Amino acid sequence: MNPTAVLINRLHEVAAPGGCELRGVLLPVTFREAFQKLEAEIHAFDPDAVLAFGQAGGRDAIEFERVAINCMDADIPDNSGFQPRDARIDSAGAPAYFSTLPIRELMEAVQAAGLPARISNSAGLYVCNFLMYRLLDATLRTRRQAGFIHVPYSPEQAAKKSPPAPAMAVDSLVQALAIIVETLVRLRSSPRRP
Amino acid sequence: MNPTAVLINRLHEVAAPGGCELRGVLLPVTFREAFQKLEAEIHAFDPDAVLAFGQAGGRDAIEFERVAINCMDADIPDNSGFQPRDARIDSAGAPAYFSTLPIRELMEAVQAAGLPARISNSAGLYVCNFLMYRLLDATLRTRRQAGFIHVPYSPEQAAKKSPPAPAMAVDSLVQALAIIVETLVRLRSSPRRP
Amino acid sequence: MNPTAVLINRLHEVAAPGGCELRGVLLPVTFREAFQKLEAEIHAFDPDAVLAFGQAGGRDAIEFERVAINCMDADIPDNSGFQPRDARIDSAGAPAYFSTLPIRELMEAVQAAGLPARISNSAGLYVCNFLMYRLLDATLRTRRQAGFIHVPYSPEQAAKKSPPAPAMAVDSLVQALAIIVETLVRLRSSPRRP
Amino acid sequence: MNPTAVLINRLHEVAAPGGCELRGVLLPVTFREAFQKLEAEIHAFDPDAVLAFGQAGGRDAIEFERVAINCMDADIPDNSGFQPRDARIDSAGAPAYFSTLPIRELMEAVQAAGLPARISNSAGLYVCNFLMYRLLDATLRTRRQAGFIHVPYSPEQAAKKSPPAPAMAVDSLVQALAIIVETLVRLRSSPRRP
Repeated sequence: MNPTAVLINRLHEVAAPGGCELRGVLLPVTFREAFQKLEAEIHAFDPDAVLAFGQAGGRDAIEFERVAINCMDADIPDNSGFQPRDARIDSAGAPAYFSTLPIRELMEAVQAAGLPARISNSAGLYVCNFLMYRLLDATLRTRRQAGFIHVPYSPEQAAKKSPPAPAMAVDSLVQALAIIVETLVRLRSSPRRP
Repeated sequence: MNPTAVLINRLHEVAAPGGCELRGVLLPVTFREAFQKLEAEIHAFDPDAVLAFGQAGGRDAIEFERVAINCMDADIPDNSGFQPRDARIDSAGAPAYFSTLPIRELMEAVQAAGLPARISNSAGLYVCNFLMYRLLDATLRTRRQAGFIHVPYSPEQAAKKSPPAPAMAVDSLVQALAIIVETLVRLRSSPRRP
Repeated sequence: MNPTAVLINRLHEVAAPGGCELRGVLLPVTFREAFQKLEAEIHAFDPDAVLAFGQAGGRDAIEFERVAINCMDADIPDNSGFQPRDARIDSAGAPAYFSTLPIRELMEAVQAAGLPARISNSAGLYVCNFLMYRLLDATLRTRRQAGFIHVPYSPEQAAKKSPPAPAMAVDSLVQALAIIVETLVRLRSSPRRP
Repeated sequence: MNPTAVLINRLHEVAAPGGCELRGVLLPVTFREAFQKLEAEIHAFDPDAVLAFGQAGGRDAIEFERVAINCMDADIPDNSGFQPRDARIDSAGAPAYFSTLPIRELMEAVQAAGLPARISNSAGLYVCNFLMYRLLDATLRTRRQAGFIHVPYSPEQAAKKSPPAPAMAVDSLVQALAIIVETLVRLRSSPRRP
């Protein structure tokens, strides 16, 4: 099981800072539906921030994606069988969007808690990058913060690979999520330094 | 802090199967003293099996070492400043010793619990390989089982590397150690399959 | 010596297809001057296409960069001591530019000649990405094709690394450049397939 | 085509130092026949030194193997369909043999010529390690020097991998072989330094 799905099941373990409410939604891994479902949820819940999570098997740290680019190039078909190659997400859209999360501060907060983290400059060209692009496009002229975070394999997944791959315990992911939420809320409520 | 040191501190969390007793000893990372200290402890405690643990930064799984070779070739000095190059451990000794642990069964038991594990065919040529060689040499004509197990960085260590490196939670190491001990005791007490 | 400098010295070995002229220019690795010098050369020479080359030590193939993003984040200072962090290249500029080279066709032509090649989705955030961004920005409303190509270490460079790193013979780079030029000219002169 | 086969075809390009003769033999990749064929050739040709070459796809340097161990553990069947697991090569044999080539000097000579090279401490547990073990066992009480050298993919092979892999030009391999032969002959004929 993908650890990002487990994160949703364990969302109640994340202490939401005063006055905050957390909601999780599981998205299908298809270009056609992933953002559709997220967008409906955003309209229903009206969140201040949207943290999209996805798995990047083989990576060894929590990776805060810096940028989504206006391109789809899938090495394998998505779960609906769709496989775009060298195609634009939105033929009239911006070439890229930068994450509106404070990725440097979030990365440093996670690292300070003793968990491997880094900033990534490419979210790939599969459903993750697509979702991030659509999400940032939809939140562009809002006050919503949004971005995408890639996570490693869980130990259970990595143990089945041959050869084994880097992994991160799901407990560590839950801990990281709590730190990310806490840091995000703290930075939003504090006046900007001049 | 090296997670193998933490393992010793948390040894009481490992349920020793009936009639078994576990003892941990922390060894210095020097060619001259590492085995000396272990050998004294072996004589004092008279164990049925000796599991030596060491860290191999950058690896992404628990690695059961298959073989120790009669060679020292240190890329950096040990903690006492000694740096042997292309030298024999024992100029009259066997060229290599194979682990006397049931490494395949131990690896499979750890993997079955959802933790990344593999068999490694080289323990390097630093203090880890040296210790494994000396240990196997000393237990050669005894009924003692012995071998060496390499572990990844802890998340705390990996978070400080630039770029980050693969890590394994110390909770997972403690869990793996419990599985290893339980499997080893079970295999020792069961009659060999024909 | 950086193999991209050698490429310039060996440019005469590349057979320019009928009517074509090739010109090479060596650029400094500084954010402030790299594009300045290239721009002057573009104005003087008025080329149909601009192929920028840079080295990406550790990569194992010729990499055709897909996109340059509007960001500088240097892990080390450039050759003039300047080290921008999380900064925009052009605060009012486009978030990204896509290569206007036919990167898929160029990659396939190089691979067909038996040389490792791939498309890369991140040119990093150092001088290479900066140069590619500036170059694409400057050629945006022209008929000039432009893009950036990363190359591995030369064997001489890789041999000095500890541990050694992937390398590509300079002869292979010269061969790849000839294929790239030939393919580019052929595609420009042929009518687009419907 | 495996570049070690090309090496044999281009053996005439290697200048044999005065009085030396070089002979190449292509071996099948099977546990049962690889050494059989080499042994027959050794008896027929009576060489002073035997350099066995094999390919290790994914490696990025010429690797001089330090040791062969008395174990076969094949992840895939050999070309005859035989797939030994965790088995001894010779149940009464030595646990390992060290290369009798001057591997440090050979590595340094290749590096000095600007080609990536290193010493490897594991030749794997497939046909390469098997061949090296048998070869060293057979030359043990002779004056013959023997050892095993692993080479990377050729560019042609690496270009077909997805993603591409590290490669070394066959011209570079031929150059390395000439350096190895020259260095070996020079060291054999010079009196040992005290």
